[in-house]
Amino acid sequence: MTSELNLDWLISVDDHVLEPPNVWVDRVPAKDRDRAPHMELDDKGMDFWVYDGKKFPSSGLSAVAGKSKEEFSPEPLAYSEMRPGCYDAAERVKDMDRAGVLASLCFPTLPRFCGQLFYEASDRDFGLVCLKIYNDWMLDEWCAAAPGRYIPLVLIPLWDPQLAVKELERCAAKGATSFAFSENPEPLGLPTIHDPSGYWEPVMAAANDLEMVVSMHVGSSSQVPKIASNTPFMANLTWGAMRTSGTMLSWLFSGLFQRYPNLKIALSEGEVGWMPYYLERAEQVLDKQRYWVQRGATFMDHGGSTGVDLDTLDIRATFREHIFGCFIEDHHGIASLAEIGEDNIMCETDYPHSDSTWPNCIQTVRNIISHLPEQTQYKLLRGNAERLYRFTPAAPPVLAGA
Amino acid sequence: MTSELNLDWLISVDDHVLEPPNVWVDRVPAKDRDRAPHMELDDKGMDFWVYDGKKFPSSGLSAVAGKSKEEFSPEPLAYSEMRPGCYDAAERVKDMDRAGVLASLCFPTLPRFCGQLFYEASDRDFGLVCLKIYNDWMLDEWCAAAPGRYIPLVLIPLWDPQLAVKELERCAAKGATSFAFSENPEPLGLPTIHDPSGYWEPVMAAANDLEMVVSMHVGSSSQVPKIASNTPFMANLTWGAMRTSGTMLSWLFSGLFQRYPNLKIALSEGEVGWMPYYLERAEQVLDKQRYWVQRGATFMDHGGSTGVDLDTLDIRATFREHIFGCFIEDHHGIASLAEIGEDNIMCETDYPHSDSTWPNCIQTVRNIISHLPEQTQYKLLRGNAERLYRFTPAAPPVLAGA
Repeated sequence: MTSELNLDWLISVDDHVLEPPNVWVDRVPAKDRDRAPHMELDDKGMDFWVYDGKKFPSSGLSAVAGKSKEEFSPEPLAYSEMRPGCYDAAERVKDMDRAGVLASLCFPTLPRFCGQLFYEASDRDFGLVCLKIYNDWMLDEWCAAAPGRYIPLVLIPLWDPQLAVKELERCAAKGATSFAFSENPEPLGLPTIHDPSGYWEPVMAAANDLEMVVSMHVGSSSQVPKIASNTPFMANLTWGAMRTSGTMLSWLFSGLFQRYPNLKIALSEGEVGWMPYYLERAEQVLDKQRYWVQRGATFMDHGGSTGVDLDTLDIRATFREHIFGCFIEDHHGIASLAEIGEDNIMCETDYPHSDSTWPNCIQTVRNIISHLPEQTQYKLLRGNAERLYRFTPAAPPVLAGA
Repeated sequence: MTSELNLDWLISVDDHVLEPPNVWVDRVPAKDRDRAPHMELDDKGMDFWVYDGKKFPSSGLSAVAGKSKEEFSPEPLAYSEMRPGCYDAAERVKDMDRAGVLASLCFPTLPRFCGQLFYEASDRDFGLVCLKIYNDWMLDEWCAAAPGRYIPLVLIPLWDPQLAVKELERCAAKGATSFAFSENPEPLGLPTIHDPSGYWEPVMAAANDLEMVVSMHVGSSSQVPKIASNTPFMANLTWGAMRTSGTMLSWLFSGLFQRYPNLKIALSEGEVGWMPYYLERAEQVLDKQRYWVQRGATFMDHGGSTGVDLDTLDIRATFREHIFGCFIEDHHGIASLAEIGEDNIMCETDYPHSDSTWPNCIQTVRNIISHLPEQTQYKLLRGNAERLYRFTPAAPPVLAGA
């Protein structure tokens, strides 16, 4: 039935948009323009966002597309000095075309990875207005600028699960299939996914019913890994996916996947090479240690709590059905594909952040996966993303000179 | 030159001794017997250690040898109910013989993994007396009970690096080749290995000069991994090696291996399956992010600090020369052997803790490694441990019925 598989294009499930200056000011009444997120210029010509009485300069590391690694810098960068693909949907598509990126899911920048900005705002009613505007802009402007080229990712009001459900329903009706959530809500001052009061249950139920993928970007706990107070920065930076491993284990043992069989999570920019070890370890811990934990023995203040029926929990089956990861240049992860499962890994390009492989995205991925069967390559390049996000991409563009 | 390799025996570089009741009371003057660590009985016949005004009951999970997993319990256990191999060196050798364990390196129990007990004691002068007694007992009684069957591990006074150097010299002269150190001294209230005042430099210099392996057991920071406050206990338990990965990265980027070329560290009970991901990630972070870090840019309060010359740091070469891990049942780690290096992995049996594979130690390891060349198997079973700890084991015993 299928013609030859096209392996020249990938779908990136983790990129980043630097919101263009008009997102909010175009959509609020004139009276609210000064209190909505808007850009101002300092006397040196550097632009920065202003919202809720605070200034938010950009980080140069969030807009490195087109720069060499020697030029990377965390210093603030004016929009005028950025590659337009950072903030312009049509320009981004040109950059995607150049790099073999058929479609892209973008996380927000000013609102932070799961919309912490609006949760932390002093006026949450207006925060909700601004959050909805982000979602509308993402759906109606960014994604609509190039149909079939962008997978929308929306935000929820983290501070009110009932309002979050309404926003999920509203966005699902407009075509969204995924929302951003925190890898660990507790450091944000929010209940965990294990909260005994069931704080997040309405959101999880809605995600289940609406088939909205829970996308959790590394760092969406607003936590920076720190091995010790004066550990060399490079060690902490390397350690980043430690957070994602904790997220995976939290969800695996949470019982959420047993209660909500349609619930699926995407671990974004967390890589995958650490998964096989932790999956195997989870099986061993479950096998050997569950008896005394189940008897409710207290041990090191943990109280033997657990959110799932340990006797029936199947770590591998739960993982394969519900948990998805993605990779940029994770050779070890791909070498471990059989242990992780070829249906659970997607690729990403992290444009325009400092881990990005742009403009060599498709070449980089193909170099890592070219030894695999073509069907497997196709899954990693795009098939898994299409299935998970229920997304039908545009036909690959025919490029001039191609 | 070599005859056929004997693959029927392993050297375990991570086991545990429950100190017998006589360790300290036999070695202090009569007047100090009540204040030295000693055992008392409660009115139910349960024994517990007493030291420095505190009671220390045992944990059943630290003495499961001979029990089925269904029987594991963290409840205190009397010595009389433990398998004698837990605390008796001659009985332990019988258990080792039964399980194919040629030699064993044991971590302490009452003093904790790196001697925290004496560091925390109200009277450190007497704490040092007790610490030296532990070392003498380990060398003169435990190890001497079966020459060539035990690799001694000694403790240092963590609170005084100069005294620690003296104790290292004293123990090295008595044949010790390794000492216990903390995977992360900061949570213990001690300076980190990166401390700019050079707190640990005398200890590291002595370890280098005396070729004393720095053995760091998982949990020797006295930290229990906790993803969030109410994360299911099984998730936290599975996450344990997260600490070891932080330790490995701290040391890799510390500059210590560049300053002390003979320094070698052993990561004990941390498994190895997570290593390939973090080694690859370290190389990528070093490749892409070092330029802006070197320019001293401040980013997220870390200040771009680093303890090593990033331009000359070779992650793989540094790892292979200086860092050693061990495994119990880590199939993924062994599947990744080529990425980690067959000279850097040893095996362990964790006797008599709840991860132990006893009495099936040799069978378990052989099942995991039997597909490898015999020379490689030999390295993993014992060759690497012999080389790292400069240890010559006894000839394998000829067992009745074998």
